[in-house]
Amino acid sequence: MKFILIPDSFKGTLSSGEICNIMKEKISIHFPGSEVASIPVADGGEGSVEAFIAAVGGEKKYVTVKNPYFEDMNAYYGLLSDGETAVVEMASCAGLPLVEDRKNPKLTTTYGVGQLILAAAKSGAKKIIIGLGGSCTNDGGCGAASAAGVRFYNGKGEIFIPTGGTLDSISRISMDEMDPILKDVEIVTMCDIDNPMYGETGAAYIFGPQKGADEKMVKELDEGLKLLSAAIENTIGKDVSKIPGTGAAGAMGAGMVAFFNSELQMGIQTVLDTVNFDELLSHDSYVLTGEGKLDSQSLRGKVVIGIAERTKKRNVPLIAIVGGADDQEIAKAYEMGVTAVFSINRLPQDFSVSSKFSRENLGYTVDNVLRLLKI
Amino acid sequence: MKFILIPDSFKGTLSSGEICNIMKEKISIHFPGSEVASIPVADGGEGSVEAFIAAVGGEKKYVTVKNPYFEDMNAYYGLLSDGETAVVEMASCAGLPLVEDRKNPKLTTTYGVGQLILAAAKSGAKKIIIGLGGSCTNDGGCGAASAAGVRFYNGKGEIFIPTGGTLDSISRISMDEMDPILKDVEIVTMCDIDNPMYGETGAAYIFGPQKGADEKMVKELDEGLKLLSAAIENTIGKDVSKIPGTGAAGAMGAGMVAFFNSELQMGIQTVLDTVNFDELLSHDSYVLTGEGKLDSQSLRGKVVIGIAERTKKRNVPLIAIVGGADDQEIAKAYEMGVTAVFSINRLPQDFSVSSKFSRENLGYTVDNVLRLLKI
Repeated sequence: MKFILIPDSFKGTLSSGEICNIMKEKISIHFPGSEVASIPVADGGEGSVEAFIAAVGGEKKYVTVKNPYFEDMNAYYGLLSDGETAVVEMASCAGLPLVEDRKNPKLTTTYGVGQLILAAAKSGAKKIIIGLGGSCTNDGGCGAASAAGVRFYNGKGEIFIPTGGTLDSISRISMDEMDPILKDVEIVTMCDIDNPMYGETGAAYIFGPQKGADEKMVKELDEGLKLLSAAIENTIGKDVSKIPGTGAAGAMGAGMVAFFNSELQMGIQTVLDTVNFDELLSHDSYVLTGEGKLDSQSLRGKVVIGIAERTKKRNVPLIAIVGGADDQEIAKAYEMGVTAVFSINRLPQDFSVSSKFSRENLGYTVDNVLRLLKI
Repeated sequence: MKFILIPDSFKGTLSSGEICNIMKEKISIHFPGSEVASIPVADGGEGSVEAFIAAVGGEKKYVTVKNPYFEDMNAYYGLLSDGETAVVEMASCAGLPLVEDRKNPKLTTTYGVGQLILAAAKSGAKKIIIGLGGSCTNDGGCGAASAAGVRFYNGKGEIFIPTGGTLDSISRISMDEMDPILKDVEIVTMCDIDNPMYGETGAAYIFGPQKGADEKMVKELDEGLKLLSAAIENTIGKDVSKIPGTGAAGAMGAGMVAFFNSELQMGIQTVLDTVNFDELLSHDSYVLTGEGKLDSQSLRGKVVIGIAERTKKRNVPLIAIVGGADDQEIAKAYEMGVTAVFSINRLPQDFSVSSKFSRENLGYTVDNVLRLLKI
């Protein structure tokens, strides 16, 4: 008997790592001696490096890079056990918690993220996974690009490092001095959102306010991104404005596509590829997954359904344990390959009450699913 | 594959019959062609006759008897398909809904219940099951006893039919004229509560108020029951005062023991015996049960645990599907033989919200349990 645990986090209550631990503990009681693979799912945000390391092994590498205000800080990337794959989480040096008392998306930079990417490449990584999410920036990835050797010129022909507030000063972009080490590196960006680079559903309008932008600043930031998009199209010849996901993380998604030639990929696909998920599946496997809520979002390539596509092909049972499940979506989930869905709510309680008991409720539900499998 | 469905009701939301139907429908989808036995559990109250008939077949027999105010009414008992077992539910002619606008436990009688018992005996029943519950009376069963031929004498030596308010007038009780047809009949009373006949946890104090008794009347009723108990002890030689359950249904429990020589039995045991539950179990059976809440009461001989005692001996899986489950009691339930417990709460919702979706939530949970069993 083999169990593969690959849950998403239950947002606001349990991390995917904690969920794996609870599941594993219950398995050790009901199926002692069985093989258990724990794959806490990284979503690209804070904790993603640790999640990948927990899933496949590896180590955190610490590097001194620039923080959102161009000050030196100690940040990290993950070098996975294959020695060829690195994981960079943007939140490590451009995360919102780093600027809690001085939020300003006009001033903050992703420069450090570019430094981490370079450091990972120099350590021998042939594939670098970039996790977006939780950023304090709106620079369209220009900071990270600058660190990698991309040159931004203003109207006077001077080189500068654009931030959210100075994107309108870009008159020309040159890729000529981009660090050649990146040529042989595959860069994949985890991105679970669909927002375009700019406009009413773009980076500035949707995510600007939580980064400290007021209404006026949102408009300025949005205008800046629009101009950056034009500059990219004119200079590099890529139209990134309409690509879904380019609006992620202060338009870092756009920068990854334009400057780093990166693919934007659903995070779960990145995780499944990285852990060689298909090879883990066998005829005696059970896959246990879960997420805070199984809803229409889940069915757009998110965790549970992303996994279901793979297990269905191999005819391996997939059991989803969830905080809640939308009625109509459950039926679709079955069609897409989910074997069964169980909600963890042991008692009829509002989320304001039950959220305090997520750990116990999850344990209870996993325990009973395993009891049923034992019959 | 064989499924035995034997759920209690989910109080206030779903009857045991409805639960059986929902379970059966889901089984027909996932295990078409499998054998299904539906045994909606009767609790002794309103609907008990129908539940027994649904479980083993039989028919309702209508009889004209006295209502709580000694007026003629059309009431019924059930004659089960073996032709030898009858079911009388007290609520049929002494139920609270019959006196909604004239509640008065000093005046109301169980006389009709005795008439139903006699009618059942005369139709050939060798075993009569009495369901207590939902009564409007507090007569200690004296009305029912009178109908069966028990004679109650007042101080002047006159025969009368005592009600809750005239129990203090009993000076002597004679069993001599009891209808002889009852001698060859086994009478079993379903009784799931522990309350003694009188006192602070007795019939009057605990159940009097909901029957319309104010504080003063509760005391009078309680005093009357105390005197009845003494009269029973002096005349019949039985001390019923301390027997748990004699306080059920306006001390009808006491009357059943004293006058009808009946055993007070946990309702689930009566049901299990009547349906020959042990004979239904086989090596390819799954038993599905459930109740509104699995709690410490469940473990005192109530439905789920009552069933678990039987399935455990035969090593048949027992799956409980519940509206909610107390954390600490679940562990005890496993020990007592419950294989697995699933709560039906699809979403984290307070009972005030979720109770509107009990049907859907139960269907969802049964569906997924069956999906898991199919693996």
